[in-house]
Amino acid sequence: MYDLIIIGGGPAGLTASIYAKRFGLKTLLIEKLGTGGQVPLTDLVENFPGFPEGISGIELATKITEQAKRFNTEIINEEVFEVDFGEPKKVKTSTGIYESKGIIIATGANPKKLNIPGEKELTGRGVSYCAVCDAYFYKNKDVVVVGGGDSALTESLYLTTFVNKLYLVHRRDKFRAAQYLQDKVFKNSKIEIIFNSELKEIKGEKRVENVIVFNKEKNENIELNVNGVFIYVGLNPNSEMFKDKINIDENGFIITDENMRTNIKFVYAAGDVRRKSLRQIITACNDGAIAANTFCTDSCD
Amino acid sequence: MYDLIIIGGGPAGLTASIYAKRFGLKTLLIEKLGTGGQVPLTDLVENFPGFPEGISGIELATKITEQAKRFNTEIINEEVFEVDFGEPKKVKTSTGIYESKGIIIATGANPKKLNIPGEKELTGRGVSYCAVCDAYFYKNKDVVVVGGGDSALTESLYLTTFVNKLYLVHRRDKFRAAQYLQDKVFKNSKIEIIFNSELKEIKGEKRVENVIVFNKEKNENIELNVNGVFIYVGLNPNSEMFKDKINIDENGFIITDENMRTNIKFVYAAGDVRRKSLRQIITACNDGAIAANTFCTDSCD
Repeated sequence: MYDLIIIGGGPAGLTASIYAKRFGLKTLLIEKLGTGGQVPLTDLVENFPGFPEGISGIELATKITEQAKRFNTEIINEEVFEVDFGEPKKVKTSTGIYESKGIIIATGANPKKLNIPGEKELTGRGVSYCAVCDAYFYKNKDVVVVGGGDSALTESLYLTTFVNKLYLVHRRDKFRAAQYLQDKVFKNSKIEIIFNSELKEIKGEKRVENVIVFNKEKNENIELNVNGVFIYVGLNPNSEMFKDKINIDENGFIITDENMRTNIKFVYAAGDVRRKSLRQIITACNDGAIAANTFCTDSCD
Repeated sequence: MYDLIIIGGGPAGLTASIYAKRFGLKTLLIEKLGTGGQVPLTDLVENFPGFPEGISGIELATKITEQAKRFNTEIINEEVFEVDFGEPKKVKTSTGIYESKGIIIATGANPKKLNIPGEKELTGRGVSYCAVCDAYFYKNKDVVVVGGGDSALTESLYLTTFVNKLYLVHRRDKFRAAQYLQDKVFKNSKIEIIFNSELKEIKGEKRVENVIVFNKEKNENIELNVNGVFIYVGLNPNSEMFKDKINIDENGFIITDENMRTNIKFVYAAGDVRRKSLRQIITACNDGAIAANTFCTDSCD
């Protein structure tokens, strides 16, 4: 029997564990893959306070993981299949059932799909949601990036150090991304920006060969010959498992108060999986610290 | 005319400036003293994610300041005397009036006083609110620390590397601090814990000589001969200047929504100065990032 089980080992879950352990709580963190969440998938993190020159996502994830381990957080690599929010809480994984008084859901989010022909079939064969993972394979090749937010622009800039040519396709007539990133993108000679356009189809026999892009303004399709397609059009919360048991919003994000409480007693949500205005590493860490603190306040006295 | 003026250069203000500059906003940060807020006053920061071995407060403050400067944040060292929340906003300092569309208040908080006889008279002559600043002067001497939260216990542990004997006086029968810190304090042979007790008076001719401690359980006064008194009994928000112009709570903390909006258009609050459940460096940084993002959302489009 644990005091607290944290589901998910990204920055929110890890920070929650650091705080929980400092509060003296018997804490279990369950992560199905490696720790760090999406952080290791980012090339360079420039806006996490404390690293003036920026830090690679892998390095930052490693550091936060080490910190959690320094406070003797028990971390297991198992996939959670089911949760029971009764008393005690029960968390069922591939290998067992773990019980606790409280649960912090820090399962994060994953890249949204375009749901267009060819996308699913060619994923891993030219279609990617992670430039840092796959950029190397596109050395001197042509790629298309879809999206207009911080992620799309950050990863485009990263990709230009590898690729020959990059088409940046965005459905609106301007980007949502930080101005700082836009300035860099506009200046980059390898990037051709295609506004007011949507990817309609990804084609290829064994690997991606070309894509169909529909320009909404001109009402015409163009075809681009590319070897890779990188998609950054937002996030889906990893809340599937909880959605019938807990309040979520229309996009599946878990609804909490500002102290990370869900509608269920002793169940909290932190990081990208919860409804919030700004999804960043720093805000995920914040949520984790607050969730652990709120659980302690709700239960420790 | 600036897009955004940030008042206060602690972790909240600095992080706000990093985000604001990345959003391409013309940003001015005004700080009356050095940047870093209360961070440099902390000996060792162990729970800020990204630093597995901990980091000194001075070093962390320096790093975040460097990061803000890397994004060309304009930082001036002036004291703000008055603000006008009309359109445009006006911020009056010792040397001029600065105008902007938006303001982020990140003025932080300062240590609460006990308001007992001798406290004011002997401040700087034995009475201190900053162990890191003053511990060195108490090498092999006896001191009393007042408080029972994280700060009181963290600073007590720090002080024991200097002092001969440390009395830790707390008004309740247990500490509020993290269990992890309590364990360390209970094990430390230099620390004598005095529960259920309050400091009533600080006495001394030129410097602190002794203190009167009232034990509420035994209903008796005891006298302790000490050379130093370190007071850690909470925080007062630095909101005096704004309190007639903005919604504050009963303790003077500025009330915001979860996106850091105050009740006044284009005025935001971030960090220790706002009403919130957990005051930590990581949560201050979070607030700063969100405040800048919300201002951008409210005004950039």
